[in-house]
Amino acid sequence: MKDTIPAITTGPLPASTKIHIRGSLHDIRVPMRRIDLSTGEALTVYDSSGPYTDPDIAIDIARGLPSVRGAWQRDRGDVAPYEGRAVTDADNGFAKGARLVAPFPQARPPLAATGDRAITQLAYARAGIVTPEMEFAAIRENEGRIAGHTRDGDPMGAALPDLVTPEFVRDEIAAGRAIIPANINHPELEPVVLGRNFKVKINANIGNSAVTSSMEEEVEKMVWAIRWGADTVMDLSTGRNIHNIRDWILRNAPVPIGTVPLYQALEKVGGVAEDLTWEVFRDTLIEQAEQGVDYFTIHAGVRLHMIPMTVDRVTGIVSRGGSIMAKWCLHHHRESFLYEHFDEICDICRRYDVSFSLGDGLRPGSIADANDQAQFAELHTLGELTKIAWAKDCQVMIEGPGHVPMHKIKANMDEQLKHCHEAPFYTLGPLTTDIAPGYDHITSAIGAAMIGWFGTAMLCYVTPKEHLGLPDRDDVKTGVITYKIAAHAADLAKGHPGAQLRDDALSRARFEFRWIDQFNIGLDPDTAREMHDETMPAEAHKVAHFCSMCGPKFCSMRISHDIRAEAEKSRGMDEMAEKFREGGKLYLPVEG
Amino acid sequence: MKDTIPAITTGPLPASTKIHIRGSLHDIRVPMRRIDLSTGEALTVYDSSGPYTDPDIAIDIARGLPSVRGAWQRDRGDVAPYEGRAVTDADNGFAKGARLVAPFPQARPPLAATGDRAITQLAYARAGIVTPEMEFAAIRENEGRIAGHTRDGDPMGAALPDLVTPEFVRDEIAAGRAIIPANINHPELEPVVLGRNFKVKINANIGNSAVTSSMEEEVEKMVWAIRWGADTVMDLSTGRNIHNIRDWILRNAPVPIGTVPLYQALEKVGGVAEDLTWEVFRDTLIEQAEQGVDYFTIHAGVRLHMIPMTVDRVTGIVSRGGSIMAKWCLHHHRESFLYEHFDEICDICRRYDVSFSLGDGLRPGSIADANDQAQFAELHTLGELTKIAWAKDCQVMIEGPGHVPMHKIKANMDEQLKHCHEAPFYTLGPLTTDIAPGYDHITSAIGAAMIGWFGTAMLCYVTPKEHLGLPDRDDVKTGVITYKIAAHAADLAKGHPGAQLRDDALSRARFEFRWIDQFNIGLDPDTAREMHDETMPAEAHKVAHFCSMCGPKFCSMRISHDIRAEAEKSRGMDEMAEKFREGGKLYLPVEG
Repeated sequence: MKDTIPAITTGPLPASTKIHIRGSLHDIRVPMRRIDLSTGEALTVYDSSGPYTDPDIAIDIARGLPSVRGAWQRDRGDVAPYEGRAVTDADNGFAKGARLVAPFPQARPPLAATGDRAITQLAYARAGIVTPEMEFAAIRENEGRIAGHTRDGDPMGAALPDLVTPEFVRDEIAAGRAIIPANINHPELEPVVLGRNFKVKINANIGNSAVTSSMEEEVEKMVWAIRWGADTVMDLSTGRNIHNIRDWILRNAPVPIGTVPLYQALEKVGGVAEDLTWEVFRDTLIEQAEQGVDYFTIHAGVRLHMIPMTVDRVTGIVSRGGSIMAKWCLHHHRESFLYEHFDEICDICRRYDVSFSLGDGLRPGSIADANDQAQFAELHTLGELTKIAWAKDCQVMIEGPGHVPMHKIKANMDEQLKHCHEAPFYTLGPLTTDIAPGYDHITSAIGAAMIGWFGTAMLCYVTPKEHLGLPDRDDVKTGVITYKIAAHAADLAKGHPGAQLRDDALSRARFEFRWIDQFNIGLDPDTAREMHDETMPAEAHKVAHFCSMCGPKFCSMRISHDIRAEAEKSRGMDEMAEKFREGGKLYLPVEG
Repeated sequence: MKDTIPAITTGPLPASTKIHIRGSLHDIRVPMRRIDLSTGEALTVYDSSGPYTDPDIAIDIARGLPSVRGAWQRDRGDVAPYEGRAVTDADNGFAKGARLVAPFPQARPPLAATGDRAITQLAYARAGIVTPEMEFAAIRENEGRIAGHTRDGDPMGAALPDLVTPEFVRDEIAAGRAIIPANINHPELEPVVLGRNFKVKINANIGNSAVTSSMEEEVEKMVWAIRWGADTVMDLSTGRNIHNIRDWILRNAPVPIGTVPLYQALEKVGGVAEDLTWEVFRDTLIEQAEQGVDYFTIHAGVRLHMIPMTVDRVTGIVSRGGSIMAKWCLHHHRESFLYEHFDEICDICRRYDVSFSLGDGLRPGSIADANDQAQFAELHTLGELTKIAWAKDCQVMIEGPGHVPMHKIKANMDEQLKHCHEAPFYTLGPLTTDIAPGYDHITSAIGAAMIGWFGTAMLCYVTPKEHLGLPDRDDVKTGVITYKIAAHAADLAKGHPGAQLRDDALSRARFEFRWIDQFNIGLDPDTAREMHDETMPAEAHKVAHFCSMCGPKFCSMRISHDIRAEAEKSRGMDEMAEKFREGGKLYLPVEG
């Protein structure tokens, strides 16, 4: 699989059908996935996979996805097309001839807010307007909530409603506790809400690098990542053709796309951090905002006076953006231009509704550096910047963790809540130990599940290749599934009403030997089936009342059924319990 | 790899040498692994792999491993050989001819305590005797403690000494807070201590089943599991040839071997639970004790009156042993013979020093069933049984979890500590969600790391094949590495002095671009190197000051080095910090 560039993956997951739920406030159709079970029942689950899993929609990446939000924006009447910035050779790293990835064929003029109109979801929320984006996101959050209201969890301070109403989403956004990353130039987007009081989301990183580059491969990685459940995708490309590849990704992306504009800006100045200027950076922001990037990682919290705090670290600065800015600051002996021009950055983001993902340039890269002075100094600055962005109606989330041992994870969440005024937290892992290169999806899933429970809104995935190489398609899938596990474990622990519905459906299928249902309800039906096939390949085994682990004689589940039948045959359960309760108590506790 | 039966894996891990530390009280040589680094430094780590990684010892599984404990036992003079029980056809499931696995060639008479002598490690500990086993285990615990005493963690009530002395081990065993599973008929054993105040250990399950069976494969699975770090191995075989395969495993096992004797007893009665008798079970205990099994899972906590508590569960009884006993109890309408004969079981265990692993026959098999009445009723009974076993000088640990969402994990540990009087806890996972068949090593590593932090002494691994099929060699390795991660994450969070030494060594290697050191310090050098090779195969890349993820221009670590050099060049760090501290603070917090 590793040597071939796969075509775009389409088609539904096993036993799954795309269904749509209509809005009540707006004319919207919200996609969900219905999993049909062998019992005739069905389970409806969240669906981030977009039109790729809908057999009714013909996929042609050269045409891009249908517009979802176009009519909504027209209805609002507060944005207008304009000529836009001309694409330069530098935008694509001066790639030429055969090395130049062709531009996306369907060019259209970018939109921007008319005049000084506030067109962000935050501005609407503050004005009391429930947008179609808000209703869309609200409906998606109700997976399981309609069918099962059981509450069981420790929300750790989160306020989880019985039902997520559009008004609840509006209220959370107005308070700054949630965001809907939704650039007005990304009409293909199916909106999703990120916040502590909503389901925990996950992000998958893709992107070419100086070492390897292919447009089709990156589009497929995005499609592949959302097929398995990624809620947003960051394009972290650093090689040539950045502009054109990003266009292809955006026009084919039903999920929010995030970027780190600094990477492209650095390419434009030949990779020399010292040569970066505010002008190059600003131009890059506008370039990407016009394309439709939904959120920008901006490392404006890395300030000149913090750099000495990193010198005695075991692993220095491990964020690429953070290290680039640190180098710039130190070389020029000047405060960061991102910090100094932060209000201008807000003005750009406000014009297109690009959300901030305030970057943690000083996140710890090793257990030794966790929760140190540098990390928290930057976090406090991010809190300051949050207020500035909010004052400009910009949506904000805050990036966090890295490598943090378990006992220091809670402190990260608490500091963030306190200093960043409950803006959504977006964390990488954290990795809970440094000693397992090749398995950092696992070292970090432990930390991710915990910090998700404690209140993180979105978890940035880590693949097995972390620290070692570029993730391929298999690694992307492993990373996504691993993080879906962490996010769902967090949702269960927080006690989202109905979160347990899918666990219960799977466990019932397991107990009733409905093997196919068990595979299909799981996060990865294909892998589950393949593993079962390895020892019991016959189709008949898919209805067998035992499995290869114990064989028929030892199957505890089969025996449990016998027990249930026997118990029910003999007498009422209560009666039986009473009779046996005191019988046979031969041993009394021995005093110690 | 899946279709071949591999030979026994021998030879050291990369850059590793077996070293031995001598005892000060006893004439013992404790094996550790020294990892040589490219800097000329070395890191010494715990080594559970036994003689297989020692090039000085010739491995021949038909001869078994050299005796480690023979002389210690002779010195004590309280055990003696006797004729022992004759092996019957039933012991091997009536396997005949070509289907019969040949018996292990080097037969020797079993040992038993002479008269009513108390020869358990608990009896010695109570008598104030520090055995060679205790000193051996103590020395192993000091990995990292000698070199680095830094304390950083939240021990959650554990009492972690600066240095683990033999006397500390004795004291913990005497208090019942720790055990050294060490059957007197297992002289090949390199003793290990399990307890809340020691490093978290992991167990790997192996074993044939009715579906597949091969002696060589099972011995290799054991060798393979300990190569990657399994501290104990359970042989959960359920097919034919159980007796002979177990002999081969034991004679070649440097780690404690655990079993569930009920499985073999059930085979002896043709797989019909109702036909089990105390006599068959007792005979099986003696058979296995004579062979040298170090700990027995005994499901004596499943009592008749608890069975109705499981009837309304989503997944009933999922422990094989638990379901077998439940069926027996219900069929006969009698109290469990394990419970009724528990004092006789203690007498057998006491004679050979077989440790109890009191089985959790009613552990939850789904999120829905976690922490329910049945689970905790059994746990309380296990606490009663612990006191009975302790009164007979038997060593005890308690089995726990299964499927438990994160917010209910702590309660499990707290209940166990309270009701089982701090006897070591030995937990499966727990799995923190049910929705990811094929990835249950990950769903459970999250729970395992947490419960390890909270106080569990040993974690029973879960492989990717859990719920789906029999783990092959690759699955065993994945399970072991995953659980080494969980155990080490727990050790870090608890704050074992020096636990962070290996993380720091790896992170320093990472920061200094010592790729080979980074691979070798990690838990799985082979996989790390293979992943690095995938994108950067050239040998020169193993010293490259960047990797394929970001390429040379974007490498944050390289930039960090530049920053450090630049910073040091310009002036003293303190001076610089002072100068920059107040500069550039253009933005003041905006009142929200």
